[in-house]
Amino acid sequence: MHTFYPPVGVDHEIAPRTGTAFSLRAGQTLTVIDPLGRQVSDLLAFSAADPRECISSGRTLDYASRIFLTKPDPLYSNRSNVLLRITADTCGRHDFLLTPCSKDTFRIIYGDAEPHRGCFGNFVEALAPWGIEEDAIPIAFNCFMNVVVDGETGELRVDPPKSKAGDYVSFVAEVDLVVALTACSALQSNGGSFKPIRWRVDDPLQQAI
Amino acid sequence: MHTFYPPVGVDHEIAPRTGTAFSLRAGQTLTVIDPLGRQVSDLLAFSAADPRECISSGRTLDYASRIFLTKPDPLYSNRSNVLLRITADTCGRHDFLLTPCSKDTFRIIYGDAEPHRGCFGNFVEALAPWGIEEDAIPIAFNCFMNVVVDGETGELRVDPPKSKAGDYVSFVAEVDLVVALTACSALQSNGGSFKPIRWRVDDPLQQAI
Repeated sequence: MHTFYPPVGVDHEIAPRTGTAFSLRAGQTLTVIDPLGRQVSDLLAFSAADPRECISSGRTLDYASRIFLTKPDPLYSNRSNVLLRITADTCGRHDFLLTPCSKDTFRIIYGDAEPHRGCFGNFVEALAPWGIEEDAIPIAFNCFMNVVVDGETGELRVDPPKSKAGDYVSFVAEVDLVVALTACSALQSNGGSFKPIRWRVDDPLQQAI
Repeated sequence: MHTFYPPVGVDHEIAPRTGTAFSLRAGQTLTVIDPLGRQVSDLLAFSAADPRECISSGRTLDYASRIFLTKPDPLYSNRSNVLLRITADTCGRHDFLLTPCSKDTFRIIYGDAEPHRGCFGNFVEALAPWGIEEDAIPIAFNCFMNVVVDGETGELRVDPPKSKAGDYVSFVAEVDLVVALTACSALQSNGGSFKPIRWRVDDPLQQAI
């Protein structure tokens, strides 16, 4: 199994409309930061031991009995194991209903003739070293994404994020993971502009040394 | 690829807390019937040409901009192709947010010491002849399941179905499919009792002969 452990305790930046993937050890904390405000970051997590196990919106929302998640909610896998737990959240609004934006999103929703590959395409490239194929990409946990749902009619719309510059959401890994992250490529999700995302990994054991 | 084409034009019954799977040709119509009322049927669909392609709640809800689907909404795949379209719906309320109930559902939500394998376990057995493994089972389209969402707080709860005896929902297949169906095993979903589900396949070409 491919591994890539990023330097811990320092900020990394994801350029607008791109993505990345990395290994996260059990016990390490991942913090996803919106440096400029109103920018979405799609997050995926797969078990490093067997990447067929991945985050499951359907199981997580069912067990939470809630569609909006925040500290201290767990993110469950398709095998009902906890992969990540939210340990800090200065924004308070994220989405776990919608798939990553893709060339199909831009074709179907935006009517683009030459659609961008979107977060989905960025995930496919970033996850290729781990052998994770595109059909295996599930619904992402969409950090800072503000999906408004009308409980009566079921109508949903994507509003600009509630995140302000510097807002962040942190997750502790319960098992060894492969994590993928993007700076989201969809205009609707980000209030009409493309911005970077920052992220860092903190390791309580390494910091104690 | 395994195939099993059920007899067309006749009703089939799924016993309480069990499931089935079968092949559905492009152009055929599947009708899922709630014979006694207030019973949920989880539905999965995979492309027969490549079962790694399956229904995607995340893409479908995104393109519909709605969490409640009815006639004439399409069900998209994880490759953004339409697998099924709803062609009739006498109930009008179904769910596409939650995963099939499983032994984990009964353990986590109901606290059962010896949990039933649920719709998930029934799907695993029914889909084994097609080589579809349990990690590949996505969020199901849950016919007649009545999930109520509070748009403000995000709280969700599972209420008894709105379906009355004889209500049905029909889908036309846009491509050749493998379909799996259950008579749901969860008390919450069904108003506290376990009942059968009926289904039938109609084929406009065969009926014209």
